[in-house]
Amino acid sequence: MSKPVRIIGIDPGLRRCGWGIVDAKDNRLSYVAAGTVTPPIDGLLADRLAALAAGLKDILAQFNPDEAAVEETFVNSGPRSALILGQARGVALVTPAQAGLYVAEYATNLVKKSVVGTGHAEKKQVELMVRTLLPAADFKGADAADALAVAICHAHHRVSAKRMGALV
Amino acid sequence: MSKPVRIIGIDPGLRRCGWGIVDAKDNRLSYVAAGTVTPPIDGLLADRLAALAAGLKDILAQFNPDEAAVEETFVNSGPRSALILGQARGVALVTPAQAGLYVAEYATNLVKKSVVGTGHAEKKQVELMVRTLLPAADFKGADAADALAVAICHAHHRVSAKRMGALV
Repeated sequence: MSKPVRIIGIDPGLRRCGWGIVDAKDNRLSYVAAGTVTPPIDGLLADRLAALAAGLKDILAQFNPDEAAVEETFVNSGPRSALILGQARGVALVTPAQAGLYVAEYATNLVKKSVVGTGHAEKKQVELMVRTLLPAADFKGADAADALAVAICHAHHRVSAKRMGALV
Repeated sequence: MSKPVRIIGIDPGLRRCGWGIVDAKDNRLSYVAAGTVTPPIDGLLADRLAALAAGLKDILAQFNPDEAAVEETFVNSGPRSALILGQARGVALVTPAQAGLYVAEYATNLVKKSVVGTGHAEKKQVELMVRTLLPAADFKGADAADALAVAICHAHHRVSAKRMGALV
């Protein structure tokens, strides 16, 4: 029996940043917590990003996860939207790294495949399967569901990442 | 005679992030320091962003600026490049904000206009004018020159920003 590993998944966004935490032990997953960080929607961009970082830091301090996983955002909008999303994503990546966590990234298709079984699942299907895989989950909202899906994806793939020497 | 204000300008980038510091007193500018933070070019993205944040934090601790200015990056490449640049930009914005600095943003055209007199100046002209405006400057590289140009732009515009209530 291995020691459980606590994983935080993050679904980056400047207005709504989903987070979800699971404990992974052998092949079993258990729900810990999930929610959404909502920085102020006005004010200086730098201050909004700092509020996002502060929100994520609070979650890290409260639940003390061992590893983090962030979805590789799919960008099909224009370069301007991609830049804005990238800024939030930079904060979502750097904050757990600064707390000393290993931060993995997973493509959207792999996250969907890990949770639903196909890379082209609808958002609703992802949420339904997250609730099925984590029956104790009492979260609200699609952002938290997406974040839990990334955490589940990392739970499934972290051992192979470890074999490739990516995990310390 | 007002108290001098120390301004850090930042030109965000994941491989090379320029920074430049000036002291502004009344209408006079004086050069303090400039350089480039160069995070490792391989490893996990989150760790590279954390190295960028750590480099900027060191500069802030060493020179203790009062205000920061970051160029609003011009994006004409694809959404994928915009996302990558956005991630570095998020870190460049959030790091001074976390240190309690006011962080202003300026469009590229306004930065060029402030330094060269026209919004369509070449990179070389910007560097030449930065060296003319700050004769003591002994920096190397285009990234540091761009960062100093943003700092100069903020020195010129911060008073009107203050009048609009954006500065505390």
